[in-house]
Amino acid sequence: MIEIELIENAFAAVTPYVRERHADKAGMEISSKDHATDLLTEVDLEVQRRVAAMITEAFPHDLIVAEEEGRTRYPDDPNARAWLIDPIDGTQNFVRSLLPEFGISIAFAQDGLLVAGGVSFPITGDVFLAGRGAGALHNGCTTRVSDVRSLTTARVEIDFGGPSIRQRTLDRAGSILLHTGQFRCHCAAVLGLCSVASGDSDAYVHVALSPWDYAAGLLLAEEAGGRSSDFHGNPIHLFRENDGILVSNGHLHDELLAHINTK
Amino acid sequence: MIEIELIENAFAAVTPYVRERHADKAGMEISSKDHATDLLTEVDLEVQRRVAAMITEAFPHDLIVAEEEGRTRYPDDPNARAWLIDPIDGTQNFVRSLLPEFGISIAFAQDGLLVAGGVSFPITGDVFLAGRGAGALHNGCTTRVSDVRSLTTARVEIDFGGPSIRQRTLDRAGSILLHTGQFRCHCAAVLGLCSVASGDSDAYVHVALSPWDYAAGLLLAEEAGGRSSDFHGNPIHLFRENDGILVSNGHLHDELLAHINTK
Repeated sequence: MIEIELIENAFAAVTPYVRERHADKAGMEISSKDHATDLLTEVDLEVQRRVAAMITEAFPHDLIVAEEEGRTRYPDDPNARAWLIDPIDGTQNFVRSLLPEFGISIAFAQDGLLVAGGVSFPITGDVFLAGRGAGALHNGCTTRVSDVRSLTTARVEIDFGGPSIRQRTLDRAGSILLHTGQFRCHCAAVLGLCSVASGDSDAYVHVALSPWDYAAGLLLAEEAGGRSSDFHGNPIHLFRENDGILVSNGHLHDELLAHINTK
Repeated sequence: MIEIELIENAFAAVTPYVRERHADKAGMEISSKDHATDLLTEVDLEVQRRVAAMITEAFPHDLIVAEEEGRTRYPDDPNARAWLIDPIDGTQNFVRSLLPEFGISIAFAQDGLLVAGGVSFPITGDVFLAGRGAGALHNGCTTRVSDVRSLTTARVEIDFGGPSIRQRTLDRAGSILLHTGQFRCHCAAVLGLCSVASGDSDAYVHVALSPWDYAAGLLLAEEAGGRSSDFHGNPIHLFRENDGILVSNGHLHDELLAHINTK
C-alpha cells in the first residue's frame, strides 16, 4: 500500500463514526486542555486511535506524531518516516458551530519533506489529497490556487487562534488585517489551507502552528500551485519551530511578507 | 396570510434557484459595487425580485427596503408597514467559500418594531423563523441562546467587514478580540446572528450595519432569549443610524459593553 492510499482509506474508515458523533454532539464527553477554550473530545481521541492503528498495521516501523495522547514529540531523527495526524482540526467548531468548520488532517513525511497529505471534511464529504510532485485533488478533480494578484482584492484568512496568541497575531499581521480586501477567521487550519488549495481563499496566516495542524494542508496548497514560508520568507521546517506560517497562492506571497511585522 | 408564513413560503420558493446557481457559480455574472470586494451577483438581484414580488402580491401597500436595486431608502414614516430584505447576505462567501457561509434574510416591521423575521441558509437547508413574543424556531424546533457567562470562555463573532471599517472595528472592539475565549469572523451577519440564536456563538459585533443586514437575525436572537443594543447599551433603531450593533446571549452583554471603546 502506498501512503496516499492509506490516507484515503483512513478517511473512508472514520467518516461514518465522525458524522454519527457530530449529529449527536449534545451527548459528547468534553475535557479541557491548556486553557478554558482548548477542548478535547472523545471523538478526537477515537479518530486518532483508529488512524494510528491503520498506519501501524500497514507500516509498523513508521513514527506517528499527533495532537493527542502524548504523541506530540517530534522524531529524534528528522529524516525518519513519520506520520502527522490531527484527528479533529477545529475541535471548538466541532462542538459549537452552525456550519461544520472542522476536518481530519493526515500527512506523511520522509527525509523531513512532506510526501503525501490529505484533509477530509467529514460532514460535507469534501476530500483533498496531494502527493509531492503529483498535484492536488479536491473530490477527485485537480485543484488549483487562485489567480488573485493584489492584496486589495484578496481574501485572506488570519487565524487568531486562542487568547494567548491574539496580541502577537495583531502585532505581526495587523497590517494584513487592515488592508486585505476580505478577511476571515475560522480557527481551523485545515479549512484555511484547503481554501487556498481550492482557490476559494488567497492566503492563510498563523503565528505559531504545530506540524500536525498544517502538514497536510501546506502540501495541498503547494501542490495546487501555492507557496509557503515562515514570516521571513524562509522555508517551513516540519520538525523545528518556525517563526510564523504563511501559505498563499504564490502571486501574493511577497506582498504579504512586506506587510508582516518581523520586529 | 400572516407575515411569518410569507417569509417561510418565500424561502421555499427561492431555495431551489439559489442551490442551482450556487452549484454552477463559475458561470455567474458578477459586478462590483462600492469597492473592489463588495460584489453583486445576478443571484442577489433575482432573489430580491422574487421575494419582493411575493410581498407586493400579498401586501400591496407595504414598503420594501432592500439591499439592491435602489431600494435602500428608509421609509418616510418610520411607523409604516415595512419589509427588509437582504437577498444574499454574504455575497462574497456565495462566490468564494469552501463552506456555504451565506443566507437569505427577510424581516417585517411595523411601528418601527420588528414583528417577524427569518433567515434561510439554502445550501444546508437550515431555516430560522421568529415572531415577536412567540420565540424563535430553528428547523421547526424552539431554539435558545447559550448559557455562557464569561468572556474568557465565550465565542464571539466580530464582523470586520470591508477594508473601510477595519481600523474602526479594531479601535472599538479590539479589547473583545484580545480577550474572548474564541474569536470568529465569517463576514455574514446572518451567520453571526443565527449562531447566537442557535446557541453556537455567544455574541455578534459590527460597527455599522444596514437594517436589511441585521433585522431578521436580531429578532431571532432576541426571541431566542438574547439581548441587542448599540455600543452604548441603547436600543437599536431600525431606520436610524446606530453607533454599532451588539447582539449577545444576554448574560455577556454588560461585560462586552465594558470592553467596547466608545470614545
